Amino acid sequence: MPADSGLENVSRIFYDANFVRDLGIRLKSVGAGTCETTLQVQERLRQQHGFVHGGVVATLADHTAGGAARSVSGAGDVLTVEFKINYLRPASGDRLRCTANVLRAGRTAIVAEALVFAGPPEQEELVAKLTETLFVVEDPKNRTRRE
Amino acid sequence: MPADSGLENVSRIFYDANFVRDLGIRLKSVGAGTCETTLQVQERLRQQHGFVHGGVVATLADHTAGGAARSVSGAGDVLTVEFKINYLRPASGDRLRCTANVLRAGRTAIVAEALVFAGPPEQEELVAKLTETLFVVEDPKNRTRRE
Amino acid sequence: MPADSGLENVSRIFYDANFVRDLGIRLKSVGAGTCETTLQVQERLRQQHGFVHGGVVATLADHTAGGAARSVSGAGDVLTVEFKINYLRPASGDRLRCTANVLRAGRTAIVAEALVFAGPPEQEELVAKLTETLFVVEDPKNRTRRE
Amino acid sequence: MPADSGLENVSRIFYDANFVRDLGIRLKSVGAGTCETTLQVQERLRQQHGFVHGGVVATLADHTAGGAARSVSGAGDVLTVEFKINYLRPASGDRLRCTANVLRAGRTAIVAEALVFAGPPEQEELVAKLTETLFVVEDPKNRTRRE
Repeated sequence: MPADSGLENVSRIFYDANFVRDLGIRLKSVGAGTCETTLQVQERLRQQHGFVHGGVVATLADHTAGGAARSVSGAGDVLTVEFKINYLRPASGDRLRCTANVLRAGRTAIVAEALVFAGPPEQEELVAKLTETLFVVEDPKNRTRRE
Repeated sequence: MPADSGLENVSRIFYDANFVRDLGIRLKSVGAGTCETTLQVQERLRQQHGFVHGGVVATLADHTAGGAARSVSGAGDVLTVEFKINYLRPASGDRLRCTANVLRAGRTAIVAEALVFAGPPEQEELVAKLTETLFVVEDPKNRTRRE
Repeated sequence: MPADSGLENVSRIFYDANFVRDLGIRLKSVGAGTCETTLQVQERLRQQHGFVHGGVVATLADHTAGGAARSVSGAGDVLTVEFKINYLRPASGDRLRCTANVLRAGRTAIVAEALVFAGPPEQEELVAKLTETLFVVEDPKNRTRRE
Repeated sequence: MPADSGLENVSRIFYDANFVRDLGIRLKSVGAGTCETTLQVQERLRQQHGFVHGGVVATLADHTAGGAARSVSGAGDVLTVEFKINYLRPASGDRLRCTANVLRAGRTAIVAEALVFAGPPEQEELVAKLTETLFVVEDPKNRTRRE
């Protein structure tokens, strides 16, 4: 697999990010401008009413949108500069799934959106929708390699 | 302290939320429509470039805005329905501080905003700004007490 | 046509709104949770670089999302409480088209999104995407009729 | 006054924008990273309930935030790439005032926020709050001059 393949670049931003590993977010698939992830919800990720905490849902959506953006950013890494999330329903159950896609891939900025679903595979409900802007920045990992 | 005091209600949404305890978010002060928190950053909360993960920053900002909202929602609990966050600078260092205040307290909806600062107390930098809408809902804890 | 039909209710929020008529926004179609509009761009609606002003694009997207929301709000009217818009490309040319759909229809709040396209029918480009929250409120027109 | 002064550059984005002139938005003052505007509300700018249309409020807030951003962007012009607005109260009366300030001025991106007030000078109410990201782009007017 070439060093600059989309899959390797996207994988890297998942497995090099401590917090993403800590939450247990798993990269399921990557396409050209798309990304899919899942999360098995540990009890420590819930809020005061027993639902998955909004911060966990936002992190999953943000990072999956980042994965979709990274798949089209070539040698450049991506950095979220802003996002907006609407919580449509409380996220109950112990499994989340997220799909993201790129709306607009510019040279310096990428806009992506993500949907988060909760529940068992056949009975998933849409629980949140995120839209975000990312900047394309030089990937520190690539820089190190060239030096 | 009366059972419906702002401080008790706000404390409850911090200490009853597993994820907030898990991250290590600490409630520092509560006023009428204001809230302040701090977070000592553990290594597991960082992203691939060594900065605090955006999801941690968003969770801190969201929950602190929720604390400010809870301080003015009387018997009702609060639920985030949407938020928007702008990341102004990468959050480096090992300490975050967040202040939040209510922009508009309605009977059914509250709008609040939060600022997140990073760095040692005397050299803090503003790293993020959030604005969010919360709905006022019946507090399950209060309901239980009445039954 | 019954007085509470979706089409009549949606038409009303377009043709009773001075500013929407003033801009020249035209309601093209309404479905259950969907709405489509067009706008022929007058020169007075442009900004300093000759593109359609972002405020015009936002108004079109907001009002079309409002139309989609009104189609599912029954007797209640809808009121935008917040929206977020990403401008994906400058809107050039003299024709805009907008499609909107409801993401979540609650009893008190509705979340809708809208896409804005610019250019001639066969060569349209996506220029903006909006997501918004609306509250369902008593329709003053319905109230008047009952009195 | 030097050709690149903040005031001249900010004035230009107000008076060269057809739509801003058409609405009647007036630039009141400009500082380093701040901007203030007013709008006398014509009847054609209202919505179906008699309030100022949200699209007018958003345009005022967006353009005033753009003015604040333009005051710190040097030779570069500014372009809104996304904004988020919360409507806190219906905007009644016939006068709006908007103040904006820059939260973060980067070389390629600027984040600004704006507050919109409605009502007579001594009894103004906060009706909306906007946060937006702008890109710094080459000013076509400056380019022309150099050629």
